[in-house]
Amino acid sequence: MAQIGFIGLGKMGSKMVQRLLTHGHRVVVYNRTQDKVRQMATYGAFPASSVAELIEKLPKRKIVWLMLPAGRVTEIYLRQLQGLLQPGDIIIDGANDFYGNAERHAAWLHKSGIAFFDCGVSGGIWGLRNGFTLMLGGPKKSFPAIEPFCKSLAPKGGYALFGEAGAGHFVKSVHNMVEYVYLQGLAEGMETLRRFKQPIDLEQATAVWQPASVIRSWLLELTDTALRRPDFKKISSKIDSVTIEELRKTAKAVKTFAPAFDIACAVRRSSSQRFVFGKRVIAAVRREFGGHSVRKVKR
Amino acid sequence: MAQIGFIGLGKMGSKMVQRLLTHGHRVVVYNRTQDKVRQMATYGAFPASSVAELIEKLPKRKIVWLMLPAGRVTEIYLRQLQGLLQPGDIIIDGANDFYGNAERHAAWLHKSGIAFFDCGVSGGIWGLRNGFTLMLGGPKKSFPAIEPFCKSLAPKGGYALFGEAGAGHFVKSVHNMVEYVYLQGLAEGMETLRRFKQPIDLEQATAVWQPASVIRSWLLELTDTALRRPDFKKISSKIDSVTIEELRKTAKAVKTFAPAFDIACAVRRSSSQRFVFGKRVIAAVRREFGGHSVRKVKR
Repeated sequence: MAQIGFIGLGKMGSKMVQRLLTHGHRVVVYNRTQDKVRQMATYGAFPASSVAELIEKLPKRKIVWLMLPAGRVTEIYLRQLQGLLQPGDIIIDGANDFYGNAERHAAWLHKSGIAFFDCGVSGGIWGLRNGFTLMLGGPKKSFPAIEPFCKSLAPKGGYALFGEAGAGHFVKSVHNMVEYVYLQGLAEGMETLRRFKQPIDLEQATAVWQPASVIRSWLLELTDTALRRPDFKKISSKIDSVTIEELRKTAKAVKTFAPAFDIACAVRRSSSQRFVFGKRVIAAVRREFGGHSVRKVKR
Repeated sequence: MAQIGFIGLGKMGSKMVQRLLTHGHRVVVYNRTQDKVRQMATYGAFPASSVAELIEKLPKRKIVWLMLPAGRVTEIYLRQLQGLLQPGDIIIDGANDFYGNAERHAAWLHKSGIAFFDCGVSGGIWGLRNGFTLMLGGPKKSFPAIEPFCKSLAPKGGYALFGEAGAGHFVKSVHNMVEYVYLQGLAEGMETLRRFKQPIDLEQATAVWQPASVIRSWLLELTDTALRRPDFKKISSKIDSVTIEELRKTAKAVKTFAPAFDIACAVRRSSSQRFVFGKRVIAAVRREFGGHSVRKVKR
């Protein structure tokens, strides 16, 4: 039975731990707030009240998966783990981070003989049921040690090692860029349907498109669900996209040409009233797949 | 056994006739070139060597489905049918046409007591197997007469009457606008993956994204297929989008805000070398779903 330490039990982390547990892995968990640790313990995880305790509870050739906000929080934990782990141990970072940071983290940890993997995770809050898509970067020779966990977390065919450190976060960023454009396309479609002189039933359109049209997709399915929610009309058009800066940094760093992605970013940032319905659709669909919070319109 | 006349046996029309035949309908077929008529006859259709013969072979309350190029060709046939049909007869136009033309055609035919439906058809060359998505506009009271054919052509839940004449072509146009944006997003994704400093295996990315990522979709699946074709590298970045003018006209007519769609149109029209790989992806994926011809790169 493979053993792993898991730090960060938020929306994604807690679901990932549950999926690992249902696949028979032994998971030691830590979270800043202990109530989530206790909750995971009820599912069969081994609780730890500190990072040091988590490390102590793992056998030799320790493997620790981080599922924390990118940036300062992740870096604090990486530094702490660097002091606690031994050469040959492994860290996997599942945050939505800029690939350049993964390269930097890999270099830090390499000095201590610790193998670092960056891992983009997609599938949102549905991952527990459908599996999480995993996009990894890191040292090939250490991959067999973490592959059993990847296999359990992902659906069949849903994980891959794309290259050295940085490749995982990079492929995830590109996935998210496509996601931005898909959502923008759906929002423009909904906005356009509403402008016809005859009243078009939007939910009838999203439903009819789903079984066999060219645009059939998970995001279309979630658009249909979102439009039918009783609170849809109360959702604000304000979109809190925490990944937008990281994605723009990635696009710029590789000097790509991605004009529809640029438009999607500009629309999310704009406070113009011109596309309010479209932005409400984006906010509502993001809640469906990611559990992202939505703001309510003040009445 | 319901009976219908079918004019236009091209890529889409011939597949639709086959699907109607496998569902037990009696279909009388006509096409300008008779070899296609003979081919459909081998599948069980009743051949007609002229439009007049097709009309003659149908019982009273005749129903005729047109699957011809929008514009002049469709109008010539509509005028001809207007002279041959009786009050109470029905015409369905499945072309990709501007909704304003459907309104005009409905008004013409209304004078002769002929009911007109405009029907957007999606599903490409895969429709025979998966069903065709049908988006209809036309008189509600005549819909029950054509619904058995719609039911057979579409997958479960895959057809609807959206309103009066024009609504069908309009909803199909909006579907195609979203399709343009989806394809643009996928093309930007592929273009960006190639620009990373580490070599990223594009087909590995499209494959890993397919089972459970947020962007899972039929077009992503077809991108994966297209990239793996041995002739992918020979596909030219020139995209022959016959629907682009009609879609732009629709967007303009309803004064919508669709900046990502505008970008997608501009990219398809541009002869810039900046996004050649991305445009090659668009051309290749369009071949996969629609059998659209691709140009080969001159070597």
